[in-house]
Amino acid sequence: MAQATTSRRLGAEARREQLVQAGLSLIAEVPFDQLSADDVARAVGVSKGLVFHYFPTTRDLQVAVLRATTRELLGRIDVDPSAIPAERLRLGVDAFVGFIEQRPASYLAIARSAGSDRRLGEVFEETRDGVVELVQRVLGAAELPPGLIIGLRGWIALVEESTLHWVALDRPVDRTELVTFLLDVALTMLPQASALSGPRRPRG
Amino acid sequence: MAQATTSRRLGAEARREQLVQAGLSLIAEVPFDQLSADDVARAVGVSKGLVFHYFPTTRDLQVAVLRATTRELLGRIDVDPSAIPAERLRLGVDAFVGFIEQRPASYLAIARSAGSDRRLGEVFEETRDGVVELVQRVLGAAELPPGLIIGLRGWIALVEESTLHWVALDRPVDRTELVTFLLDVALTMLPQASALSGPRRPRG
Repeated sequence: MAQATTSRRLGAEARREQLVQAGLSLIAEVPFDQLSADDVARAVGVSKGLVFHYFPTTRDLQVAVLRATTRELLGRIDVDPSAIPAERLRLGVDAFVGFIEQRPASYLAIARSAGSDRRLGEVFEETRDGVVELVQRVLGAAELPPGLIIGLRGWIALVEESTLHWVALDRPVDRTELVTFLLDVALTMLPQASALSGPRRPRG
Repeated sequence: MAQATTSRRLGAEARREQLVQAGLSLIAEVPFDQLSADDVARAVGVSKGLVFHYFPTTRDLQVAVLRATTRELLGRIDVDPSAIPAERLRLGVDAFVGFIEQRPASYLAIARSAGSDRRLGEVFEETRDGVVELVQRVLGAAELPPGLIIGLRGWIALVEESTLHWVALDRPVDRTELVTFLLDVALTMLPQASALSGPRRPRG
């Protein structure tokens, strides 16, 4: 009897992952910062107690879901490693825009409020760092010049904000043109950012 | 006696403004979301009770300080209305970068956590809208095309994020070059953003 129960049970890791994946689906509808253990319990068909067993606080659950969001985003924007860099970049921008437009309320909540919690803020930073590292890998660079890192971080914020505002204004421009525009901005500005010089010391 | 006391007292509006201005100075050192009535009371040399008289909660105080921050930012980036548009834009970008680098911890706290509070989030949105309106006035345009609004919002986020990351990395590129770079990005991308077309309807 004990064995039969065990076999019907998911292992702890699998159960945890199931709950996180449910949270990931839910934040397409529920703004991220309002995601609760109740929502996840209902979606999976388990007790709220079980959710709290894996995630003692709502914030623990949100941190785990945000981490999964980061993983999915980074996986999705690195669509086809065999494509040439320019094509990888286009596919990446397209996937980034798609990722945001599928859950705009949650993406907005994350971008505008992750900093109010230390752990959420850390995951948010990891996401931006992850995108920078991805570009580094695509370029096959051992290290990126500081100007390029600064430019890249700025460009990621631009993609997020432009896409969120595009959704907020009810998509008043053509999606393909938006993606091409964001891509063109990268192709123009990133080489310029790369070439920025270090601080000039006063001559003495 | 009562009269003498009254004459030494600031009027309610002036006192309120004094407290807000003290908060505005303090957030150069204290991260915005940690600003307290205690800090302001100490800086002005009044009781904490007086601060709470004007701002019943710490959040009320923070909202008022954020509103003052917005007013100062919008005033500072519109440096010289008599300059030609290109020069106004350069002065504006330089002032924007300067504004952020004088209080990076607070600017970061605002950008990353204002969304966790409805009122702070509204003031944050008003700031971005204010920058868009300023550009509209500089261009003398009655209305901006939607692509330009989307591009402008994105560019503001880029300036913020690039500058914050430049400060976080201990200013590894020359400040003048950074300002010129951010300006060049605007001059290249905003005309492109203006020209973005509306959504294409499927032919039928």
